[in-house]
Amino acid sequence: MKVYGDSQSGNCYKVQLTCALLNIKYQWFPINILKGDNKKASFLNKSNNGKIPLLELDDGRCLVESNAIINYLAHGRYLLPNDVFALAKVQQWQFFEQYSHEPYIAVARFISKYLGLPENRRAEYESKHLGGYKALKVMEQQLQKSDYLTGDKITTADIALFAYTHVADEGGFDLSQFSAISHWLERIKMQDNYLPMPLL
Amino acid sequence: MKVYGDSQSGNCYKVQLTCALLNIKYQWFPINILKGDNKKASFLNKSNNGKIPLLELDDGRCLVESNAIINYLAHGRYLLPNDVFALAKVQQWQFFEQYSHEPYIAVARFISKYLGLPENRRAEYESKHLGGYKALKVMEQQLQKSDYLTGDKITTADIALFAYTHVADEGGFDLSQFSAISHWLERIKMQDNYLPMPLL
Repeated sequence: MKVYGDSQSGNCYKVQLTCALLNIKYQWFPINILKGDNKKASFLNKSNNGKIPLLELDDGRCLVESNAIINYLAHGRYLLPNDVFALAKVQQWQFFEQYSHEPYIAVARFISKYLGLPENRRAEYESKHLGGYKALKVMEQQLQKSDYLTGDKITTADIALFAYTHVADEGGFDLSQFSAISHWLERIKMQDNYLPMPLL
Repeated sequence: MKVYGDSQSGNCYKVQLTCALLNIKYQWFPINILKGDNKKASFLNKSNNGKIPLLELDDGRCLVESNAIINYLAHGRYLLPNDVFALAKVQQWQFFEQYSHEPYIAVARFISKYLGLPENRRAEYESKHLGGYKALKVMEQQLQKSDYLTGDKITTADIALFAYTHVADEGGFDLSQFSAISHWLERIKMQDNYLPMPLL
């Protein structure tokens, strides 16, 4: 099994963290988006839109979209519930992550950390904070009621939202006002086989 | 079972179409976002972020996020495959829809159809066309290879992407250049129990 990605991307880190928690072995192929690695024909053949992370199975079949990949890897394992409604709740939080969280928190971090917060992106960077804080409030509300996003057990929904939330400070977000989120982050870091995002 | 939504919203229509195809009965509760129905406390109690569509089960449990809802409703039915990788492919296209398609095509339609394309939103409206056409090209590429997005059978991935694609013209998109998409739209409209989006 091969995984193509950038270890500083939260979306790619979701796959690395899921594999670590589940003891899944894979070969890692670094892709540098800023250098255009994902626009090369050899990569576009595997991924129809040049997106990372990309999972390539031993038989050559490929899968993109981080949350689809981690749900595939976690099928039948402790990170996914068996109950149909509980499984739908995992997906609910993952769609929330891709629509209402990532486009704000990850993009603010990208502009700041990867691009060095250039003046011509500053207004966009600041506009991302409104949506980002709104998403954090939704998470805080749930995490005041339950230890993990869908209940008392960790699932791939937590991995999906942990990825960019635990580095939200790199996008200028202040997490100190969100005590339930802060405790949840610590709870995830204490998991057996937890893998931190590598430092640059 | 109750569904809260706006029948002109593609995200809500996904739920109506899935229920129609699967012969699932439900009570429909109209929510008018422009009038702030979704910000009332009675609604916010059910949905932690005021999002529609919202599914409320007879026992009071609630689920949001359109794609999570339609996957829940389709569990064990012909609109979802049993194979784990095939199921991951359905999710791949749904995450693509929420991240790379809806924020462009649905938002352009919203600005044009709901808001009447006001002058102060025109630049944003035009900027949505670049991302929207990019998403349509990714779909066209796949639909030149297979009748439906994940293979030779219709799944909830097709319903997810049909919702806003079949009214993309209302957002200023010209679909005539995408022949595979056009045939796919017709294929979906020919399904038994197909339910059109209601006219305004």
